[in-house]
Amino acid sequence: MTRFASFAELRAACLDLPGGHPDAAAGIAAREASLTKPPRSLGRLEEVVEWLGFWQGASPPHLDNVEILVFAGNHGVAVQGVSAYPAEVTAQMVANFATGGAAINQLARVANAELRVVALDLETPTADFTKTPAMDEGEFLDAVAAGYEALSPEADLVVLGEMGIGNTTAAAAVAAALFGGGGARFAGHGTGIDEAGLRRKRAVIDAGLARHDAILGDPLRVAASLGGRELAALLGACLAARHLRMPVLIDGFVSTAAVAPLKKLRADALEHARAGHRSAEAGHRLLLDELGLPPLLDLGMRLGEGSGAAVAVLVLRAALACHTGMATFAEAQVSGKED
Amino acid sequence: MTRFASFAELRAACLDLPGGHPDAAAGIAAREASLTKPPRSLGRLEEVVEWLGFWQGASPPHLDNVEILVFAGNHGVAVQGVSAYPAEVTAQMVANFATGGAAINQLARVANAELRVVALDLETPTADFTKTPAMDEGEFLDAVAAGYEALSPEADLVVLGEMGIGNTTAAAAVAAALFGGGGARFAGHGTGIDEAGLRRKRAVIDAGLARHDAILGDPLRVAASLGGRELAALLGACLAARHLRMPVLIDGFVSTAAVAPLKKLRADALEHARAGHRSAEAGHRLLLDELGLPPLLDLGMRLGEGSGAAVAVLVLRAALACHTGMATFAEAQVSGKED
Repeated sequence: MTRFASFAELRAACLDLPGGHPDAAAGIAAREASLTKPPRSLGRLEEVVEWLGFWQGASPPHLDNVEILVFAGNHGVAVQGVSAYPAEVTAQMVANFATGGAAINQLARVANAELRVVALDLETPTADFTKTPAMDEGEFLDAVAAGYEALSPEADLVVLGEMGIGNTTAAAAVAAALFGGGGARFAGHGTGIDEAGLRRKRAVIDAGLARHDAILGDPLRVAASLGGRELAALLGACLAARHLRMPVLIDGFVSTAAVAPLKKLRADALEHARAGHRSAEAGHRLLLDELGLPPLLDLGMRLGEGSGAAVAVLVLRAALACHTGMATFAEAQVSGKED
Repeated sequence: MTRFASFAELRAACLDLPGGHPDAAAGIAAREASLTKPPRSLGRLEEVVEWLGFWQGASPPHLDNVEILVFAGNHGVAVQGVSAYPAEVTAQMVANFATGGAAINQLARVANAELRVVALDLETPTADFTKTPAMDEGEFLDAVAAGYEALSPEADLVVLGEMGIGNTTAAAAVAAALFGGGGARFAGHGTGIDEAGLRRKRAVIDAGLARHDAILGDPLRVAASLGGRELAALLGACLAARHLRMPVLIDGFVSTAAVAPLKKLRADALEHARAGHRSAEAGHRLLLDELGLPPLLDLGMRLGEGSGAAVAVLVLRAALACHTGMATFAEAQVSGKED
């Protein structure tokens, strides 16, 4: 089992990253140029096929084994009244995932993806980050390892999602710690908190940022002190995918905040990732802009669970079908562009 | 066979439109509110399910028979050098559709939709609209009738697409005639014309607008004088869908321009339609804004053929799967929102 012994060992693993496969990407681009359509007229459909192949090292790429990983955790900061729902909903929704009743169950079926849910010590919430670090070094590294190990090495693509009452507060705190602007910049209504609750949420984030001021320059300590177990596991899974050169679809605001420390540690750390969907949670737009990740979809969703990225899997399947199934100009005897 | 005898008879049919089914929509909204997610957290996925049910009169709605109709036509204005491809490509691409080699063939398969291609007198291009009306009244009404008749009444949803070398010029001319701004506002690079070609294209549109200045206040005569057969057929198919209360997904710039006269004739004429995708063709954003049709997708595609809307069918399927498959709060014993 991959277990990082310290922040330093994890940091070293975050800095030692492989690149992709330029030859596969070049083969894909050459075929795209020969297909019966004006050059680049399929837009992002062409771009994502090249991206898949670049990381898979396959021309054409494949989407036979798509995995959706959903990590769930509970948050000490939830006692501060930052969510519209009670904390027991995290475990109730994990049960709902197990019986197939959640949105992500339906979307995984439509996307022909395997859904796996990993609940992380739900009965032991992280500490309230306004008082102490949410996790100590050992707790954080355990959660990172759980995510790192959860990834199936044989997957062609992994979708990263989450569930955790209170976790948009943790995500906004991590985002503000990494990119500045405080609670006012990244906190939103989450699952639907009212205006008084939003003011409370912002104040809680600002209190957390003040409490942990000394470590805000260290992205991994930020993730440990202000994040949560499911965020740490998402970071671990995203890192594992990179070490395997496996493409990743990030879901919403929480998933994006969870992997943002990787980008702070190394500028190209998220090149194997694409953002599946831009959440209606206001901070997500800002965060995606900071990370340089233009989303594939913008459907006003704000559910988490990997739901937005699961819909984006459908776009990847459409893109791959065009790439592999279309005729070339020569095959179809269609005239090319005039000079 | 439905054949409109005159502009006046067609105009009357465009003004006599049924509404939808509020009861079905209310039933859908009530179920959505009971499902295990924060209210409205699936964003447009919830909106489109309600829209489908409102027009189908079904709660839940169904997507068992999805039809993609692609109309193809040739344009006299193509002789003016407004396209990057020669005019024979229209017929060559119709052959490519028949043998399954085009993008829309792959996308129809992924979307589990039936593709039907209707080629409209390809060997007889419309007239050059800088000289005379593209179609006289009879030619125009024949093309409208071809579209009206092409729709399968048993379809649950129809996607409207097109193919026709030169047709972004016709579409831009129609859009400019209806909404103002001339060739400079709505003309773009189409399939990839260069800067000199774009200047020529704008001048051609402005010449057409000047030539037909006397009829610019009449949306159907605009469609006849500046449009094309495939645009007229799209108008006919969209009108037929409304008379059948069938939901419509419009594709890109040309499809949108083709149905825009309906909205000019009656403000609510496109309420049974949604825009599947915003084309990278610059005029499409302006046109969708004019029509109040926010697109479901924005993937940088600019191919036509119904391709963008076909990808959007996947979003509708995802939305419907959530609506029909998710558990309610009561079924899953998940706690609701706190007061």
